[in-house]
Amino acid sequence: MAKAPILTPQAENFPQWYQDVLAKAELADNGPVRGTMVIRPYGYGIWELMQAAMDRRIKAAGADNVYFPLFIPESYLKREAEHVEGFSPELAVVTHAGGEELAEPVVVRPTSETVFGEFMAKWVQSYRDLPLLLNQWANVVRWELRPRVFLRTTEFLWQEGHTAHASREDAARYARDILEHTYADFMVNELAVPVFTGVKTRRERFAGAINTLACEAMMRDGKALQMGTSHELGQNFAKAFDIDYLDDAGQRQHCWTTSWGSSTRMVGGLIMCHGDDAGLRVPPRVAPIQVVVCVVRDGDGVVEAATRVRDELVAAGVRARVDDRVSVSFGRRVTDWEIKGVPVRIELGPRDLAEGNVMLARRGADKTSVALAGVGSAVSSALDELQRELLDEATRRRDAATASVGSVGEAIEAAGEGFARIPWRSLGEAGETELAEQAVTVRCLQMPDGSVPDDVDADGVEALVARSY
Amino acid sequence: MAKAPILTPQAENFPQWYQDVLAKAELADNGPVRGTMVIRPYGYGIWELMQAAMDRRIKAAGADNVYFPLFIPESYLKREAEHVEGFSPELAVVTHAGGEELAEPVVVRPTSETVFGEFMAKWVQSYRDLPLLLNQWANVVRWELRPRVFLRTTEFLWQEGHTAHASREDAARYARDILEHTYADFMVNELAVPVFTGVKTRRERFAGAINTLACEAMMRDGKALQMGTSHELGQNFAKAFDIDYLDDAGQRQHCWTTSWGSSTRMVGGLIMCHGDDAGLRVPPRVAPIQVVVCVVRDGDGVVEAATRVRDELVAAGVRARVDDRVSVSFGRRVTDWEIKGVPVRIELGPRDLAEGNVMLARRGADKTSVALAGVGSAVSSALDELQRELLDEATRRRDAATASVGSVGEAIEAAGEGFARIPWRSLGEAGETELAEQAVTVRCLQMPDGSVPDDVDADGVEALVARSY
Repeated sequence: MAKAPILTPQAENFPQWYQDVLAKAELADNGPVRGTMVIRPYGYGIWELMQAAMDRRIKAAGADNVYFPLFIPESYLKREAEHVEGFSPELAVVTHAGGEELAEPVVVRPTSETVFGEFMAKWVQSYRDLPLLLNQWANVVRWELRPRVFLRTTEFLWQEGHTAHASREDAARYARDILEHTYADFMVNELAVPVFTGVKTRRERFAGAINTLACEAMMRDGKALQMGTSHELGQNFAKAFDIDYLDDAGQRQHCWTTSWGSSTRMVGGLIMCHGDDAGLRVPPRVAPIQVVVCVVRDGDGVVEAATRVRDELVAAGVRARVDDRVSVSFGRRVTDWEIKGVPVRIELGPRDLAEGNVMLARRGADKTSVALAGVGSAVSSALDELQRELLDEATRRRDAATASVGSVGEAIEAAGEGFARIPWRSLGEAGETELAEQAVTVRCLQMPDGSVPDDVDADGVEALVARSY
Repeated sequence: MAKAPILTPQAENFPQWYQDVLAKAELADNGPVRGTMVIRPYGYGIWELMQAAMDRRIKAAGADNVYFPLFIPESYLKREAEHVEGFSPELAVVTHAGGEELAEPVVVRPTSETVFGEFMAKWVQSYRDLPLLLNQWANVVRWELRPRVFLRTTEFLWQEGHTAHASREDAARYARDILEHTYADFMVNELAVPVFTGVKTRRERFAGAINTLACEAMMRDGKALQMGTSHELGQNFAKAFDIDYLDDAGQRQHCWTTSWGSSTRMVGGLIMCHGDDAGLRVPPRVAPIQVVVCVVRDGDGVVEAATRVRDELVAAGVRARVDDRVSVSFGRRVTDWEIKGVPVRIELGPRDLAEGNVMLARRGADKTSVALAGVGSAVSSALDELQRELLDEATRRRDAATASVGSVGEAIEAAGEGFARIPWRSLGEAGETELAEQAVTVRCLQMPDGSVPDDVDADGVEALVARSY
């Protein structure tokens, strides 16, 4: 009889597979307060590498990091009508502090447009102060009715960018640059997750935005995950918070602002885009452990040799570690590293060492024998190949599961398996409402060549439709 | 008549000087909710470099980063009697969320011993799981009655380490290692802030600890600032949260835990330890801008030459930028960079360029002329010298302002100017109470050679006494 699988197979129950991977790969636990999460060392290690790679791109886009307070006066939220309406149901409110009831309750930030707005108004005086490009890494809180670790949690970690510009054109260009050159570039090249980029329909826009751009990825169960959004806020917040400037003719003008965010939700996306029935598959660029050097059996200097291999890899810039827990069965350890999705496993036993070889196993591929002297270059190639193959495989799977359709009925049917692509003109807002009744949404609008339309009503726009997380 | 100073002189009003520097160097602002702060790009840039340098040391100490929730059930706080008593007056409480009143209010973490304890109890089973060494970078909230930006804020950013060990000895050794090799080493070698390390008296211990170790620095007004603490928690939290393990004889044992924290308060320490009447002086290792290349006047390729100098410095790993705002007066710009405490200013004008030279001004020192070809090595030397001199100067000032005294009266008098050192046996807990009536506290207890005593009652222990922030 076959061994019982350690993880629930994806085809049998994908949500249960996800829960199993979170636990067995020691990524995260549920926190004690409903909807919160505890991110464990391995999960946090992935997030730290993601954060560093995203932060480099954000700085390259000219934004400076800052830190704004967790607590926002309730009155701030109320200044922008759509914004407060959108966020009110999700707010956590501090009513008591320092042993007393507060005169004005404070809200735990669900996002920070309002408080950034208040200070941008102070810092921006003249056109010379523009654009003002800020970003922060922070925790935010949105009370969730159906929480799921990483995907939808009451508290999550994210970066939120907030910028002010002199013109609508400059704001629109920047919001789009962030989407394409910061977010999509990061997702494709670091996470190996292909994304569709486009604009949201009016129905799906951020509360307070005049245009929302998004990156949408397909998970292995065919559902969509929104991986990041970039919003043109028009002059809505500039008017609510008096963010204005003197132009070069000495006239007072309202700024045009943007905001954009990406979060720990991307960790969930990485898990569900690449993981298989054996466990996680972590793209090498964000893998906390890129190579594990496993001692098969101790003796004849194997541990010392494994340590030397590890040291050489580390010296070459590879995140490598030794597994010399020989009191645990070798098979059990191999299974554990597969569940954790470590890109490359090197196996080293007395016989291999005597022959001057190691076995090298790329996650999910057959083992090959490699001469000790060639380990460095073999590892380097294996990591590059895996990074590329994960992206290629995810792209092939997504494209195969994206159907061009012509009617709402067909779109709903296709959304049972993956994405549907349908002319926005044939769908329209009425069709969007019909879809919503079946829990299917327009993930984004694209031009037929995959580019981002200038706006919702651009000629020839197509809707990408799916069920989503 | 002399020009009015841009900053209030330190000797005139040190607290006002501090406020002036925060504003004029664009470090931070007060947030809209009382006691919160907005950390601006320049202040956050310093914090990011501090964080990176501290994080490297924490990882070198074997701790893994994790992330625990912001919200803690109120009931958790109550499980450790001293802990809840210590923190109750400072708690912020969420009573409403998602539009409803919560069944159990949740507390915004003031520190996370309790929630780490709950999960350590799950993760630790056997002696093989020990020591468990965790750390998180997070925001915490303690409602403050007398808030001051960076020094004492309602919300602050920090790292908090939490570890579990098999024996008291192992926990004590680790808590001390963190104090000496992680914290003090960081403060001395990165921040150029000399610190006294020692143990806290019973009165000054962390709520729930059996021993608190601390790093104490002297500010330029002679007052003390606690820069970091490391606590032995004994088995208090292990018993409250059932953190236990099976030892190698199969017997169930309670763990011994530690916790240790350092925060954005250190930014305040850096400002008040090094700043002078001309502004901040940022130690080169944590300076977001180490070198500013100032274009004196445009023309004759000066901007291009300044850019080349900047590019060469950046290529050599120096954080450098060009100031080519020639529409702002040169004097004003020089003053601004001095207020910001940029370590090295390079001045470049048409005449310098024609002669193949630049002027190099180390913060606070006379300008010297340097050949263009030698800028890289001159900058490198200047940065090293300044890093060393800031530490030397602060150490000399601190030692000159530390008096050995024999009575409570003398200690109070000495604390008007700086620190007093007095045998703990002559002071005692009764003397400590007398000091407290004059707002003077025992900052820490040390051995006469400056080393950390094994405990409060060790033979020959001396008390370091001061007014403090």
